[in-house]
Amino acid sequence: MGDAVTATLRLGVIGAGAMGTDHVRTITTAVPGATVTQVHDRDAVRANQVAQRAGGEVAASAEELIGSDEVDAVVVAAPDATHAGLVLACIDAEKPVLCEKPLAVTAQDALRVVEAEVAYGRRLVQVGFMRRYDPGYVRLKETLAAGDLGDVRVVHNVHRNASSATSATGPGIITGSMVHELDTVAWLLDDQVVGIRVESPVKDGLPDPQLATLEMAGGALATVEVFVNARYGYDVRCEVVGTAGTAALARTPSVSTRTAGVEGVEVASDFVIYFADAYRHELAAWTRAARAGGVDGPTAWDGYLANLVAEAGVASLASGTRQAVAAAPRPTLYDGIR
Amino acid sequence: MGDAVTATLRLGVIGAGAMGTDHVRTITTAVPGATVTQVHDRDAVRANQVAQRAGGEVAASAEELIGSDEVDAVVVAAPDATHAGLVLACIDAEKPVLCEKPLAVTAQDALRVVEAEVAYGRRLVQVGFMRRYDPGYVRLKETLAAGDLGDVRVVHNVHRNASSATSATGPGIITGSMVHELDTVAWLLDDQVVGIRVESPVKDGLPDPQLATLEMAGGALATVEVFVNARYGYDVRCEVVGTAGTAALARTPSVSTRTAGVEGVEVASDFVIYFADAYRHELAAWTRAARAGGVDGPTAWDGYLANLVAEAGVASLASGTRQAVAAAPRPTLYDGIR
Amino acid sequence: MGDAVTATLRLGVIGAGAMGTDHVRTITTAVPGATVTQVHDRDAVRANQVAQRAGGEVAASAEELIGSDEVDAVVVAAPDATHAGLVLACIDAEKPVLCEKPLAVTAQDALRVVEAEVAYGRRLVQVGFMRRYDPGYVRLKETLAAGDLGDVRVVHNVHRNASSATSATGPGIITGSMVHELDTVAWLLDDQVVGIRVESPVKDGLPDPQLATLEMAGGALATVEVFVNARYGYDVRCEVVGTAGTAALARTPSVSTRTAGVEGVEVASDFVIYFADAYRHELAAWTRAARAGGVDGPTAWDGYLANLVAEAGVASLASGTRQAVAAAPRPTLYDGIR
Amino acid sequence: MGDAVTATLRLGVIGAGAMGTDHVRTITTAVPGATVTQVHDRDAVRANQVAQRAGGEVAASAEELIGSDEVDAVVVAAPDATHAGLVLACIDAEKPVLCEKPLAVTAQDALRVVEAEVAYGRRLVQVGFMRRYDPGYVRLKETLAAGDLGDVRVVHNVHRNASSATSATGPGIITGSMVHELDTVAWLLDDQVVGIRVESPVKDGLPDPQLATLEMAGGALATVEVFVNARYGYDVRCEVVGTAGTAALARTPSVSTRTAGVEGVEVASDFVIYFADAYRHELAAWTRAARAGGVDGPTAWDGYLANLVAEAGVASLASGTRQAVAAAPRPTLYDGIR
Repeated sequence: MGDAVTATLRLGVIGAGAMGTDHVRTITTAVPGATVTQVHDRDAVRANQVAQRAGGEVAASAEELIGSDEVDAVVVAAPDATHAGLVLACIDAEKPVLCEKPLAVTAQDALRVVEAEVAYGRRLVQVGFMRRYDPGYVRLKETLAAGDLGDVRVVHNVHRNASSATSATGPGIITGSMVHELDTVAWLLDDQVVGIRVESPVKDGLPDPQLATLEMAGGALATVEVFVNARYGYDVRCEVVGTAGTAALARTPSVSTRTAGVEGVEVASDFVIYFADAYRHELAAWTRAARAGGVDGPTAWDGYLANLVAEAGVASLASGTRQAVAAAPRPTLYDGIR
Repeated sequence: MGDAVTATLRLGVIGAGAMGTDHVRTITTAVPGATVTQVHDRDAVRANQVAQRAGGEVAASAEELIGSDEVDAVVVAAPDATHAGLVLACIDAEKPVLCEKPLAVTAQDALRVVEAEVAYGRRLVQVGFMRRYDPGYVRLKETLAAGDLGDVRVVHNVHRNASSATSATGPGIITGSMVHELDTVAWLLDDQVVGIRVESPVKDGLPDPQLATLEMAGGALATVEVFVNARYGYDVRCEVVGTAGTAALARTPSVSTRTAGVEGVEVASDFVIYFADAYRHELAAWTRAARAGGVDGPTAWDGYLANLVAEAGVASLASGTRQAVAAAPRPTLYDGIR
Repeated sequence: MGDAVTATLRLGVIGAGAMGTDHVRTITTAVPGATVTQVHDRDAVRANQVAQRAGGEVAASAEELIGSDEVDAVVVAAPDATHAGLVLACIDAEKPVLCEKPLAVTAQDALRVVEAEVAYGRRLVQVGFMRRYDPGYVRLKETLAAGDLGDVRVVHNVHRNASSATSATGPGIITGSMVHELDTVAWLLDDQVVGIRVESPVKDGLPDPQLATLEMAGGALATVEVFVNARYGYDVRCEVVGTAGTAALARTPSVSTRTAGVEGVEVASDFVIYFADAYRHELAAWTRAARAGGVDGPTAWDGYLANLVAEAGVASLASGTRQAVAAAPRPTLYDGIR
Repeated sequence: MGDAVTATLRLGVIGAGAMGTDHVRTITTAVPGATVTQVHDRDAVRANQVAQRAGGEVAASAEELIGSDEVDAVVVAAPDATHAGLVLACIDAEKPVLCEKPLAVTAQDALRVVEAEVAYGRRLVQVGFMRRYDPGYVRLKETLAAGDLGDVRVVHNVHRNASSATSATGPGIITGSMVHELDTVAWLLDDQVVGIRVESPVKDGLPDPQLATLEMAGGALATVEVFVNARYGYDVRCEVVGTAGTAALARTPSVSTRTAGVEGVEVASDFVIYFADAYRHELAAWTRAARAGGVDGPTAWDGYLANLVAEAGVASLASGTRQAVAAAPRPTLYDGIR
């Protein structure tokens, strides 16, 4: 419990789709100190619905929202292609921004955001890698930090969705889904991906599931299975294997039942349900930081790195070969952040 | 997501001990729409500490706080002996009140609160049986409602604390700890306790653990083990056994580790940690209801019943015999609430 | 691994029903050093089937089988009412006998077996409380012996069958099913039941489930739920609660599956499957002891005590009151056995 | 339960090290119908110890044992380098042989065994891939066969030992440990490995852990982690991921304990304990088949394939590149076996 911050943070939310709507629901029901004053979406009807529920107004354009005197900070939950541009506009307006992943569609565009932030000279951007706020991942990182596992050698990751949109593509699975693991493994190990290989057992049609191997600068290897049509539900697993032991995300169902010869627990249906706590903590931490004039969590630099590794992954899936990942030099603005 | 309620609820908190402090922490970090404007505690120093963190003022007395124009609703987390009197004062002041369990020290005093509320003609009192807001218990009740378990025959409950205060007594274990199960079982089954037997394997010294058997009006039986010096941690379990299957609270640790020949998960250290979500949902639901001019959750009547059954339990522990529980007639004010 | 015993033990099996058939299957497939030479059953057809599979002969009567020169030791898996008489005949014939529980229909009859064995002067009788050979229960007893749990205060037991015969009765549930817990708790704690109370939520029709409370001479209390029409499968649980921690039988499914929104494991369908290892170890230990001229495991005295406590339980269920259990003085023949 | 086979199978056991000793213990305590008549080991003292316990004789040489009139069938648990030669001698002697894995040190040598068996015209050789008899793996294969998982896309395998001999080498981890997964995955999927890649996060010193990716002829991919110095205990996991769901080996601890803030279950210390049931079922099935004049389980051909894939794995670990696996044409003798 820190000292009280009295001013309420006035938020503008760009994007009133599933993610934006859920963020507004979380803010209005579980995040004190923030109020949604403006909402924009290309679809005015749903912008209006969300704005009404939140007690805010509809902004005619994203630009207007970002520039508004009624908006202290911005949540970007619009289509991926717009992210980099909107975040740049927020930097221009000198307003803190929480941008849903990915930060940009290409690593190059993400680097432009980094450069703009560096030019501005102070961090304003948080990228929506909400897993860093999930109680399980947080506890995993604490367990690693406590040293009980020795040196980390391997991290195993599984990431499954019940079903994907029919528009899903092989590269899209990497940039849209696997990107979470690309960030999470680096964050957990305080390390960087320097090589990646992605392959799929499915050669015809959508390459799903995909298996990736990540090589970390520090030597550890990580495996990643992403399966966006796993049918049975939403499922995320992470096991860290060290020289003295292992630690893994635990299951957290609410109840277990015994009926008809089966002892069973529910599997979450989707990520909004599975990561509800993570989204709540993410929004609360960002709000807290913004009210105090600062910023928290995954940086634009993390967003750039995730884009960069994802691009290498896409190249690997296409070529069938391992791809090296060579990042630009890290600006000092991002020193010591994790 | 309901329609927005614009006015912020101004809360007065009576009691700045562990529970009151935690409630204030929860309100300020996770409950939008409420602000703590006044705090009172017999210990002015800790009242001041909590008030400062919350951005509120210290009230010189509980009466002053309840009567203050700066207070819309009251949280009572003061010593048990003061509960009934404070809640009566809140009813007098026509302000919604969330009172930590127990509602009163005796069933007779609890009944006085009920009568005052009935005389006032509208419900203002919520008793702090927070388990009704715990995601596990909620899901358990939903599972029962879905009918998959058939008719309920038995409910098994386990309730363990790592250690008790040295001042713990046999009756105190019933009125302070087992009282949660006395309410929860009735709520889960939408039924009422009509008989209770309490015994302990320990005949000399503190009778701990205690085993209780509850007879429900509808015929089901419930077992309760309460063990307030279980040493290993805080632990709550509930299994409902029906004619077609069973359902139980599931474990929800964050991570599991494998080290030194053991695969293990953490056991929560105390109820504040174990029921953090329950407290948050309780406070959020109460705030939501109060902002809308209403009240939610466990009623003064539920508080009275829990007191009544606990008294019978105390008598049973002392006498070694089963005690019948005969409640007063239920006022119509409480019809259809659950 | 002990020194080799060369002679093969020639077994006579009385009773070719489900239990007897399964014992013969276990002996022929998993117990070296024993061979089934004679089988008797009132139903000659099934006696013949079992004998053929085992490579043995059909005996015209139980008496003939017990007296046969081709039979070194006897397995009694005939109807309960015949147990005591058959075991007495085995003692007369000076042959080791493994008798399915219960040892007798009444405690008085069981005591007669005890007296006959005492008169003979050497133990020949093992009662089929196979749970004492179950790897889980064995590990539980070892855990208790290691002292990690402190002093035992409570034991919780659950014992469920998918469904009972239509001929099931309230007393039969105690003498046929609960009798396992009556023995197991005493064995685990190396203690004796001195009081019992049995009740059921079902007042009309078959009193099922039943809840029992056992008072041990050493002060500990045990709860037992027996539910012979639990529908969902066969289920046995045991948790020992000590002053420093608890230990419980763990689940041991073969696989877990995730399909259609559920992560599930199979529940065993019946006790033959659930306790397959226990039956195997029981038969192996008994065979090993008999080949070495001795006897192993639960004694006639244990069988008598189980009968005695069950009778008190039946009286409690009928009367609704707690019943004291007063055993005869233990003959020195049974000193130090556990 | 099949019809009785009266003749006892007389076994010769070559190798009285840890594995041979454990096999003899299993045979004498849990496998009816077999007796160990001869034991040979280069170390006469330990040969004598094992022979005495089993009630058998010591054979002066492996050749003498294989040729003895007192030996109907042979168990080979001698050093790896002797396996192929001993199995060839058994084929010469027309005696069934259960040979510990690997069948040979090189795929070429294994192929020689295959050719000898083919020349003989009837199968005599079973290779000791005991996992095929493990209840968990068996249930996993049944679950796959039932079709509930849809088409298999991925299999994840983890295989950990607490510690390795100081003589362990990178290639040895593949041929000695990973070889189990090389056989198991093929058996589970009724498929064949056509490509393999092995890498390790450890570049200096023993390459441990190792990660392998297996490409199956049918398109599925398998991941394998082998970690022979995992410290915390022995651990085996297998999850099969299909288009309709997944199935995995479940944990089967005996008890769970709650002490000092941790709910824990024991991890097995080594494979002899973990796979005790698998070894028992393996020996029982082999004995049953041999008594009936036949053979069961994994064939010499399976042994050859495992050798072949392991060799490719060794080459991959050395070269850092994916290796194709091209098997000789399968002799018709092995048609339809699985």
